[in-house]
Amino acid sequence: MALAKGYAATDASKPLTPFVFERREPNDDDVVISVKYCGVCHSDIHQARDEWGGSKFPMVPGHEVAGIVTTVGAKVTKFKKGDRVGVGCFVNSCTKCAARDADLEQYMPGIVLTYNDVEADGVTPTQGGYSDSIVVKEGYVLSIPDNLPLDAAAPLLCAGITLYSPLRHWKAGPGKKIAIVGMGGLGHMGVKLGHAMGAEITVLSQTLSKQDDGLKLGASHYYATSNLETFKTLAGTFDVIICTAGVAIDWNAYLGLLKIDGTMVLVGAPEHPVPVNAFSVIAGRKSLAGSGIGSIKETQEMLDFCGEHNIVAEIETIDIKDINEAYERMLKSDVRYRFVIDMATL
Amino acid sequence: MALAKGYAATDASKPLTPFVFERREPNDDDVVISVKYCGVCHSDIHQARDEWGGSKFPMVPGHEVAGIVTTVGAKVTKFKKGDRVGVGCFVNSCTKCAARDADLEQYMPGIVLTYNDVEADGVTPTQGGYSDSIVVKEGYVLSIPDNLPLDAAAPLLCAGITLYSPLRHWKAGPGKKIAIVGMGGLGHMGVKLGHAMGAEITVLSQTLSKQDDGLKLGASHYYATSNLETFKTLAGTFDVIICTAGVAIDWNAYLGLLKIDGTMVLVGAPEHPVPVNAFSVIAGRKSLAGSGIGSIKETQEMLDFCGEHNIVAEIETIDIKDINEAYERMLKSDVRYRFVIDMATL
Repeated sequence: MALAKGYAATDASKPLTPFVFERREPNDDDVVISVKYCGVCHSDIHQARDEWGGSKFPMVPGHEVAGIVTTVGAKVTKFKKGDRVGVGCFVNSCTKCAARDADLEQYMPGIVLTYNDVEADGVTPTQGGYSDSIVVKEGYVLSIPDNLPLDAAAPLLCAGITLYSPLRHWKAGPGKKIAIVGMGGLGHMGVKLGHAMGAEITVLSQTLSKQDDGLKLGASHYYATSNLETFKTLAGTFDVIICTAGVAIDWNAYLGLLKIDGTMVLVGAPEHPVPVNAFSVIAGRKSLAGSGIGSIKETQEMLDFCGEHNIVAEIETIDIKDINEAYERMLKSDVRYRFVIDMATL
Repeated sequence: MALAKGYAATDASKPLTPFVFERREPNDDDVVISVKYCGVCHSDIHQARDEWGGSKFPMVPGHEVAGIVTTVGAKVTKFKKGDRVGVGCFVNSCTKCAARDADLEQYMPGIVLTYNDVEADGVTPTQGGYSDSIVVKEGYVLSIPDNLPLDAAAPLLCAGITLYSPLRHWKAGPGKKIAIVGMGGLGHMGVKLGHAMGAEITVLSQTLSKQDDGLKLGASHYYATSNLETFKTLAGTFDVIICTAGVAIDWNAYLGLLKIDGTMVLVGAPEHPVPVNAFSVIAGRKSLAGSGIGSIKETQEMLDFCGEHNIVAEIETIDIKDINEAYERMLKSDVRYRFVIDMATL
């Protein structure tokens, strides 16, 4: 086994600190990747601090991984040394069920998360991208288009696919009015991707502080949800609302902004349940739906789409020693719009 | 104006009592109907007791109306004296918007409810079917197929369409596994209609007390939700769940019974909001949707479907003097499966 360097949470109450650990020996179907950049997702914080329960320590977070292939196993056909690649939220899945055939493996229990999980052997902990290397089965490695810089492409692996998948599934395109709730790491990707798909994008953000950015990135309209007039003005407006808020907001108020047959899609998960009024969905045959990341196939499709449209995340690159401060800033929404760790600083 | 006899709630705390009132003079496009039977819907109780707020008294409830045409206006072309007809939950709507064109007028604010509302003139109260006659615009009168008895057909006008519409919209048919939550006035119609559409129907009821009926009416399976094993056994089973429960139940537990991409449709509305966990819909890209009655066009389609398949409600016919007792029995779920008032007893 090879030693890897990284940063880990050693328990839920401690800051992340330097950590040396073993990566598994690559198999015939594995790709060894030198990690160049890793995006910082809000779920890294949730898990490092055990806010969802069941966290496994020590934990090396990170599932927005961009790097360069250093070695490939004997049976690997899709990648070779030097390739620009990414790893997202999962590194394995059950490959035997209908969901995998339907490219829905991300919703199945057989999924193996990139970190805070165990490998298919049931014992080896998985460790994420806040490290200098990672070993991943070929089928879970993504190609990053040549025209996309690795640092700003890294957040596509989670934030990008998390928005791309529902935008595609609920048919974002010309003639569709789509609202993105929240102008953060997820939300700003929704603006860029939805706009590139041809939909008319409205940002619904707490304040207008990021309005200029929102309009520049592709939104046609930008409203403050702290202004209650917004909910009167926009009643019955949207075909789809994608809600990136990770804290509880009044979903009923947002459901009122949908057209008949409209859908609000949750991609952010508040810690506690949110009260829903049955009439909020009965009136107008509306839906409150959810969506989580995307399949490997769809993630590659998203990366290729981003390559064609020259879409990457808006990022602030940090040194890995500043990761704990970055977490604090994220909790204050003080980032435009995604932190990405430069792994050369490890 | 003609005098009509009926039963009315005079305020929210009083039992229904005999009531004489004026029906409006028929216009050229109106149909005058001699009411023969009227089904008793749970929403009659909610409104007579002002449980949803805003009730208008005196109130003649009733929106499952079946009767015979006695007179038609000069411009009426679809009906003639002697026709067997029905009136459902609304008697007018805005006719100028896209939703009306799309046969979705039931979701628009221009709708005029059959009772507890005001006519398009903005002042005349509408009064429902617990009465000997009703005057309704031709475009809101439905034809009841000749082979369906008027008494048992009456509940199709609300209970029937309330289940038919979501079953059609969410594509009930061969190969689809559909659960009906609640085996009452709405639920038993869902079993009959869903089965006739070719879907595999499972009833999820609190107890097994109505299991024999459920299986006889077309369900393939019947489970008690008071048995927590049910939620383990059926995890990930259904394409669609239609929830008729008018009281709060744990929607999260039911969402767990859906397949990936499954939808739970609320057609019953609990008085208070129900807490929903975001992960209940994010995991498996599920939807919590709602549906309310159906358009006039779809209601006629439903009646024709029922004619073809010989579907009516299971009813217990009552004298109108027993309406208050019937309400009490409904609150105890002591009815198999719909009370219908025989208006000859008025």
